[in-house]
Formats: sequence, C-alpha cells, structure tokens
Amino acid sequence: MKVVNLAQKFDAFSDHYSPKIVSELNNFCVKLVKVQGEFMWHHHDAEDEMFMVTKGELYIKLPDPDGTERDEATRPGEFIIVPHGVEHMPYATEEAHLMLFEPATMLNTRNVKNERTAAQLQRI
Amino acid sequence: MKVVNLAQKFDAFSDHYSPKIVSELNNFCVKLVKVQGEFMWHHHDAEDEMFMVTKGELYIKLPDPDGTERDEATRPGEFIIVPHGVEHMPYATEEAHLMLFEPATMLNTRNVKNERTAAQLQRI
Repeated sequence: MKVVNLAQKFDAFSDHYSPKIVSELNNFCVKLVKVQGEFMWHHHDAEDEMFMVTKGELYIKLPDPDGTERDEATRPGEFIIVPHGVEHMPYATEEAHLMLFEPATMLNTRNVKNERTAAQLQRI
Repeated sequence: MKVVNLAQKFDAFSDHYSPKIVSELNNFCVKLVKVQGEFMWHHHDAEDEMFMVTKGELYIKLPDPDGTERDEATRPGEFIIVPHGVEHMPYATEEAHLMLFEPATMLNTRNVKNERTAAQLQRI
C-alpha cells in the first residue's frame, strides 16, 4: 500500500492519448493520460467514463438533443462523467492532464478499434 | 451531464465524517467528505477503498506485519488505496477534504455498525 503522487506519475511519461494504469481497486482502474489535440468521436456501450482534470483544460464535444453540438469545458479541480452510450469527442487545445476511472477491461476507444486503441496499457 | 466543481461541492457542507454523494458511475459512487480528528479502526470485507486528498493532510494508521502500527500521510494531489480486509484508522489533526470512490452499496464503517455509520448518504 503506497501513497500515489499524481504529479510524480505524470512526470513519468509524455505521450498523448495513451492512458497509463496507476492503480486498481474493485476491478476498476485509475489511469492517467495526457491529451492534446483532438481524440475522436466514440461511445462506450456499457461503461460510464469519468474525466478528472488536474492540469489544463479538457473540452468534450457532445451532441445536443436538437442535433447540434456543444462543448463542455472541465478544468483543474473539476470532473465530468460521460454516461455509457453517449457519443463524445474529447479535445484539448493545450496539453491537459487527466485522471480516469474505468472498469479494468475497458478499451479507450471502445466501440471503435483503430490505431488509437491502446489495448495493453502500460503500468506506471 | 454536468461538470462537477469539487470546491463548490465542499462549500455545500461542513460536518465531519459524513460522506456526501456527488456522482455515480458504473455502480460506483464519487463521495466527498470532510474529516477532522480520529475516525475508528475498521475494515471492509470486500471493497477496496480509495482516499484522494484535495485539502489538508489525511493520516491513516495501518498495522505493520510485526504487530506495530505505522502512519501513512496523504496530501493534496495524492491518493491512497486501502485494500479490502486491511484494518485502518483514518485521522486528521486539522480539517482535511477527501474524495472517495466506493461501490454504491458500501457503508462507511463497513464491518462495524454504530453511531458513525452513515447508511443513507446525502446527495449534494
């Protein structure tokens, strides 16, 4: 049992959109990820997704019921939960640092499998 | 879907050792709690427990294999996970603010039921 310091863990990597596992509990993973630029539109069939921002600003494009899109901005000290089934597209204009809580089995791109899918996540 | 600002949520209550539910995802709860003074020795039979500190210092007394006790200190920007089955006694000399991730069904005092058991948690 060890105290995890987020800043120290973030210092251990520099790549973007490649989540790292830092801890597991109750079949959940705590992951850290650095993001910059656009990710991709996707949804998760069964899992809700939690994004907690520790640095920078995370934007998430979300569909509005009227067919338009909106941007939701999340900043340090804030988190947002995207429920399962909801299409979303995360992006960040400057580098942002995020903590994620996800079922241990979840793929980052879930319903889409492509070159951005990180199936075997690094543990830091 | 709404962005949750932790500082705003902490402003909404002042009592100690009385966790409030702020969000749910995947049958997990995100809870906020303010602590000051000693809690109690207890363990959780099945659930691992995650304490993330956003203000102040959290100390957790833990048993060492040789029968002695040690204190683990967790500070803002850090978290600690206490695995299920491990006896622990959280305390804080000055008020500390914590974010918890727990299965939606978990009692705060788990294997002990007494006046500190908060069975019906307030939602903020």
